[in-house]
Amino acid sequence: MTTSAPQAGQPGEQELARAALTYLAEPGDPALGALLAFCEPAEVLAAIRAGMLPGIGPGCGDSPASRKALARALECWRVRLPGLPGDSGLAAAHRNAIRLVCPADPEWPAGLDELGRARPYALWLRGHGDLRAAGLRSVAMVGSRAATGYGAHVAGEIAADLAEQGWTIVSGGAYGIDAAAHRGALAAEGVTIAILACGVDHPYPAGHADLFADITARGLVISEWPPGRHPARLRFLVRNRVIAALARGTVIVEAGERSGALNTARHAAHLGRPLMAVPGPVTSAQSAGCHRIIRDWGATLVTRAADVIEMLSPVGAADPPTAPAPPGPRPADQAPSRDELDPDCARVLDALPARGGARTSTIAVEAGVDLDAVLRCLGLLAGCGFIERCDQGWRLRRP
Amino acid sequence: MTTSAPQAGQPGEQELARAALTYLAEPGDPALGALLAFCEPAEVLAAIRAGMLPGIGPGCGDSPASRKALARALECWRVRLPGLPGDSGLAAAHRNAIRLVCPADPEWPAGLDELGRARPYALWLRGHGDLRAAGLRSVAMVGSRAATGYGAHVAGEIAADLAEQGWTIVSGGAYGIDAAAHRGALAAEGVTIAILACGVDHPYPAGHADLFADITARGLVISEWPPGRHPARLRFLVRNRVIAALARGTVIVEAGERSGALNTARHAAHLGRPLMAVPGPVTSAQSAGCHRIIRDWGATLVTRAADVIEMLSPVGAADPPTAPAPPGPRPADQAPSRDELDPDCARVLDALPARGGARTSTIAVEAGVDLDAVLRCLGLLAGCGFIERCDQGWRLRRP
Repeated sequence: MTTSAPQAGQPGEQELARAALTYLAEPGDPALGALLAFCEPAEVLAAIRAGMLPGIGPGCGDSPASRKALARALECWRVRLPGLPGDSGLAAAHRNAIRLVCPADPEWPAGLDELGRARPYALWLRGHGDLRAAGLRSVAMVGSRAATGYGAHVAGEIAADLAEQGWTIVSGGAYGIDAAAHRGALAAEGVTIAILACGVDHPYPAGHADLFADITARGLVISEWPPGRHPARLRFLVRNRVIAALARGTVIVEAGERSGALNTARHAAHLGRPLMAVPGPVTSAQSAGCHRIIRDWGATLVTRAADVIEMLSPVGAADPPTAPAPPGPRPADQAPSRDELDPDCARVLDALPARGGARTSTIAVEAGVDLDAVLRCLGLLAGCGFIERCDQGWRLRRP
Repeated sequence: MTTSAPQAGQPGEQELARAALTYLAEPGDPALGALLAFCEPAEVLAAIRAGMLPGIGPGCGDSPASRKALARALECWRVRLPGLPGDSGLAAAHRNAIRLVCPADPEWPAGLDELGRARPYALWLRGHGDLRAAGLRSVAMVGSRAATGYGAHVAGEIAADLAEQGWTIVSGGAYGIDAAAHRGALAAEGVTIAILACGVDHPYPAGHADLFADITARGLVISEWPPGRHPARLRFLVRNRVIAALARGTVIVEAGERSGALNTARHAAHLGRPLMAVPGPVTSAQSAGCHRIIRDWGATLVTRAADVIEMLSPVGAADPPTAPAPPGPRPADQAPSRDELDPDCARVLDALPARGGARTSTIAVEAGVDLDAVLRCLGLLAGCGFIERCDQGWRLRRP
């Protein structure tokens, strides 16, 4: 076992600390969220190691009760210190093609910051896509594990149509609607993101190993939990807030009255993101939750991809920015400019003809990029609004 | 052929005139509606006979254009004068057990007055129920003629549940959802009202002859068109406003994108009545109209009778009035007091035990009323809130 720094760039002190914190605390821990609002991650990690509470601020250690809760949390985190891998596990993760994305990184999706103190400490990623770019035009599609044939069919169809039009699908990794949504997006050669409640090195359920491999090849498998962590019932619920916060809006396809998908729906509603539901037969228990949130929560009834896109595209905002980005930091919800694309994407974009369309294989030859990478780049470029599908394959999108 | 006055009481001059007007003008004729806002029906009839325009008022003959339109309408109505039966057809209708209800009658439903100038001139009725009483707790349930098995099943179930709880079903007479709704109500021994776009002596479609006979036995078949009048495409659309205006709310069970049921839905929305729709599979064209009005018109998604009742029962208003009605004219939306019940209903109500319930057959023996009449009375008494179902059959409803 080596403890040398990972080859993919030098992780900074704060990045290493954040990686360590994902090992020590459960995601969404309000005590750690409160501490991170006032202290640098490295400072918090040092405090945990030392067993001494760090500085205080409003709502964080500024009352005896709050201070007592923090001290108790500190003890819990310290319990996991002996299991903390060297180098915060980054070297081993890197060997498994897993990388870490932290709030300060350019790839960090701005939408997650709306979770406030419940924001993930960091995310572990597997796959080649740019998380921020993929999330810019993304839809969460979740639902019942015990989906009916109807539900799985509709989820697949809508996800495929959305992916065709350059939208990224965001979902969990469960059987039923989650899997149908990913498969629909993959069938349309789109980008899809699976957000797990366990380490991305052993995605759960194991029966979806092939699906996770396909998602990794064309999109991203991500998690707040570090590699090696197992799933647990509560973790799925904690994970749901990330699904809702990463996507621009959430679609519930099938959900029983007590489905976990309604938990994701509640997060979307609390975040003020568009909440949508697909109706079904009133005789189907798997549609009862969808009907309830349309009736009682004001979720919008959607029947097809166009309905979803309409909900997520404010009037006049459907067209992507085409002028080069202004100098300085990129605004939170703006697609990367042409200059900011990764080398593969830039070559693929350059390979598209000025007029008319080109087939994927032609583009690959022209760009000199292998077909897998071309597929990934095309999805991302479509997601960022640079290109769109056409009869001939792909073409540049006009302003 | 006899021209003697009908035996069922002496129709007044205005009643005879209104009967005649249903023969001469199409229902919903804005010119006749405008005239009736200013003139007595007999005055209008005399003017038609004389070929001379009667008095004028705001919006009715007070401009040259309006006067010209009125004169043109007068000529159209005069065309039908030769076909006007003696005694305005009332004697012949009476022989066929058909009666006329006019706006001034105690049986006239107050809800129809909200149609303003589009209010029916009069209604032709077949059946024994009291139209006003039956309409007090009523739900319009309409939908596609080409209903699916799913739609017919759901319509029948919800209608039966509503009828069980004393709600009257209001619908058209068409195949599909209309028929399923009536059949559901009848199966629950409830009251149901069919509103036709043709004379009630030859209800359309002929294939529903048995259904119409059942409805007549337990509820009402009604029409704005006089006996002998055939249905026509436009008449169904004109008729729809009466379905929406008679019922407290409207439920669309299945409707294609261009279904006539959406026309009824539009009337309900314009009248400010609760508009509801039952969802279905998004893969079914017959549910597309329902989904559209939930999504775009703000119709409430309903999946069962309890949802419908909740929409139609303002908080605290679910219980019926139990104190005797105050002297003087009965308020528009108040159920008849005990003293106002027809003799059969009064006897049936007296036959119910003070405590506990009784079976329908026991009640019939106790009241000395034949079983058919008892069934009719029980439905009406439940609709007015006097009685309710219980395990033993029927019981008095407690305040």
